[in-house]
Amino acid sequence: MRPRRLRLPDQVQVVNVGLSMFGDAVRAQGATAVDVDWRIPAGGRPELVRALQQLYGPCAGRIDAANGEALRRLDEGLPMLSAIATMRDVVPGVDGRTILHCGPALDWAEFCDPLRRSVRAAVMAEGWAPNPDAAEALIGDGGVRLDAANDHDMVVPMATAIGPSSPVLVVDNERGGNRAFASLNQGPGKVAWFGVEAPEAVERLIWLRDAAAPVLAAALRRSGPIDVFSLVAQGVQMGDDVHMRTQATTNLLLRHLLPHLVRVDSPDLPAVADFLSANHLFFLNVAMAGAKAVADWASEVRDSSIVVGMARNGTTFGIRVSGLGGRWFITGAPPVSQALYYSGYGPETSAPDIGDSAVLELVGLGGSAAAASPAVASFVGGSMADAVATTLKMDRICAGRSSRFKLPTLGFRGTPIGVDVRSVVELEITPAVNTGILHATDGTGQVGAGVAEAPLECFQEAMLALAAVLR
Amino acid sequence: MRPRRLRLPDQVQVVNVGLSMFGDAVRAQGATAVDVDWRIPAGGRPELVRALQQLYGPCAGRIDAANGEALRRLDEGLPMLSAIATMRDVVPGVDGRTILHCGPALDWAEFCDPLRRSVRAAVMAEGWAPNPDAAEALIGDGGVRLDAANDHDMVVPMATAIGPSSPVLVVDNERGGNRAFASLNQGPGKVAWFGVEAPEAVERLIWLRDAAAPVLAAALRRSGPIDVFSLVAQGVQMGDDVHMRTQATTNLLLRHLLPHLVRVDSPDLPAVADFLSANHLFFLNVAMAGAKAVADWASEVRDSSIVVGMARNGTTFGIRVSGLGGRWFITGAPPVSQALYYSGYGPETSAPDIGDSAVLELVGLGGSAAAASPAVASFVGGSMADAVATTLKMDRICAGRSSRFKLPTLGFRGTPIGVDVRSVVELEITPAVNTGILHATDGTGQVGAGVAEAPLECFQEAMLALAAVLR
Repeated sequence: MRPRRLRLPDQVQVVNVGLSMFGDAVRAQGATAVDVDWRIPAGGRPELVRALQQLYGPCAGRIDAANGEALRRLDEGLPMLSAIATMRDVVPGVDGRTILHCGPALDWAEFCDPLRRSVRAAVMAEGWAPNPDAAEALIGDGGVRLDAANDHDMVVPMATAIGPSSPVLVVDNERGGNRAFASLNQGPGKVAWFGVEAPEAVERLIWLRDAAAPVLAAALRRSGPIDVFSLVAQGVQMGDDVHMRTQATTNLLLRHLLPHLVRVDSPDLPAVADFLSANHLFFLNVAMAGAKAVADWASEVRDSSIVVGMARNGTTFGIRVSGLGGRWFITGAPPVSQALYYSGYGPETSAPDIGDSAVLELVGLGGSAAAASPAVASFVGGSMADAVATTLKMDRICAGRSSRFKLPTLGFRGTPIGVDVRSVVELEITPAVNTGILHATDGTGQVGAGVAEAPLECFQEAMLALAAVLR
Repeated sequence: MRPRRLRLPDQVQVVNVGLSMFGDAVRAQGATAVDVDWRIPAGGRPELVRALQQLYGPCAGRIDAANGEALRRLDEGLPMLSAIATMRDVVPGVDGRTILHCGPALDWAEFCDPLRRSVRAAVMAEGWAPNPDAAEALIGDGGVRLDAANDHDMVVPMATAIGPSSPVLVVDNERGGNRAFASLNQGPGKVAWFGVEAPEAVERLIWLRDAAAPVLAAALRRSGPIDVFSLVAQGVQMGDDVHMRTQATTNLLLRHLLPHLVRVDSPDLPAVADFLSANHLFFLNVAMAGAKAVADWASEVRDSSIVVGMARNGTTFGIRVSGLGGRWFITGAPPVSQALYYSGYGPETSAPDIGDSAVLELVGLGGSAAAASPAVASFVGGSMADAVATTLKMDRICAGRSSRFKLPTLGFRGTPIGVDVRSVVELEITPAVNTGILHATDGTGQVGAGVAEAPLECFQEAMLALAAVLR
């Protein structure tokens, strides 16, 4: 028998896992190499990897079953806009001199500039102080109770802060039996929700309460409850991500309200019509209340790793995970990275990411619905392919898909829903949040819009807490 | 020297031009073949090929220069909705007992069933006859002058027919100095524009004239002229093809009119608001008037081969070519081929293609804008790729692209505009027209919607006429 001779292969097929430089070296020599985009899970941090091994290993069955229930609630929740009412009359836990604000709760000393201005504007609108200095003194002396809207079944966009006399949207989740609230959208211009405390911003708050709310409440009473997510589903077919852009959904709501509005007998009707016609974000707050109602129904599902709360106040960024009850996991608020600024503004003049609107990203809207929106495409690279990539990135950290919010550019499949804290930590991909940008210091108001990447730390902390609870 | 020997090639690369069966045979033997989709121009008919040789040869320079001017007008026309007025007061050439109807002019005996019913409804709405039989007798006796709306600077959708007392939309093309008109959209249900002559259809015509038009005219006077194609451009970003679907553009119009409507002091306002809120096709007629104004401006450009008129009456289908003046080239109306029917209906109960709305396909909307519309996708195959294919097919017969109607799914490039009669005949591809379908015989009204392929014959005839003129 002749000895077998070692032969080198004629052809080499290279699969390169991880860093692309090894594949690049092969390609530089004229051979082909396929790159596999792989990274060490959770950045290779041992305590995170151990927790992931537990949550994807022994605990996986319990978690997946629980997540199925949380996903069902996110997908089947039926938020109905049923009334516009006064906050102190309907929002639980509001008494005396309380101001509810966006994001996690925090100490007054830590409030960012735009939110400080908005709180002072709300204090003035309530009649508790005649000017910003007096408002500042009153708050500084502890004369006002400040609390997170989220902890009162409510969400408010950007730097919104409102007091007990304010009108709120009341949304009832008929399937879950729970209720959520949002402020009325304050419109464009010099407005408190953009961090402005100038007299016209205070006047807008008073006008919304005394003029707009009664007219809108009367029209809504005539109309009867409105299926919020039915309008949202149509809007997603019409280019809204229903976060950064709510033009189509606002118009659908106006079309629905038109016959009822014209029958409201009020001298304020013409001004309310002017306001509605000029405010393409009017539906934003309606959608947020709907998302909050659905996310709250999906919360407190034992063992679930689905994120059910995500909120920012310009100082901190917090999330809540279904299986961990009402507990917030909090870190610093990130900047808004992929941004388009108004002329004369830039990162250096921008406040960090702010507002409760990120709840939309948890129910399949905003960044999850980017692929539906030509308007969002301009913020994430310019082409629909870029917008689609944003949605596909959300896919990687979401446990399910919406059965009602459909993406035309992806064969009418549903938007990703149910952010799984395990996937976020494993892949180090956090939700992309479509959002506006406020001036950092001078009360100018909105200076741009863009996409914020949620900070990883609070997801890591929540994942570790879930592992500890399930141990 | 040794003789060279003939060697067969080791590899064969096959390019197959025309019929795919030759390529199939190569592929069946395991080899590869690239198919080139090529057909004999104009079906190989000698007189058509000769004319094309002339129009693409010696005459090409003159034609292309003329088409450049026609395209500029199609792309830069600025139609402004400036008033709602009574037909006899503003539409030229309307006097006495005149009814204007969709499509090319034709003899009463040739009118299809739905249009006959609509004409009789219009006669009753004018008060010229008390019932359908009396109306039929009056028309049969020559007591009513019937004429094509298109020949009076007007367009009307589906089986619309209207008399001198009817309200019309007045659109002024500010750049061209010309004016066009359209009827008011009659809304859904038992309505004359769907070929219904029941009492409620006649009542709708009377109500539109006596109640809706005064309210809308007053609101429009308050608003001032409205830039029709600005709304259209936004609507194309919001899923409208602005022919089969006009939901987004209708809502944009309603949002714009809202402040003006609520200030109109009229007891009819609530009913008008009900009508507008329930009529997602209200903007269709506005867009048509805009398209007519622009197409008319682009007409009568000497030497131009661009199609500037396209209309159907359920019996005949006619086109006009810019370089051939006002002359119509007419053939039989086609069926609506790619159709979705209401339950219980089908091709056998459907009238042929009808209405003037095909003018929209000439200015970059309807079939040209299919790629913008998830709703249209469901009629042309179900996916956005099918909708994109519809637009790309229109590209092949169009000489230019809109600079204002942008397609998100095609990198925000413009919709195809300027159907070139040469390309239609050469490639045997006719415009795809997004349209509704009416019952053929029983006055039921709309029974479906779909896409009609314009018939080739009238394009061939027009192309031959152009060749004769340019000889």
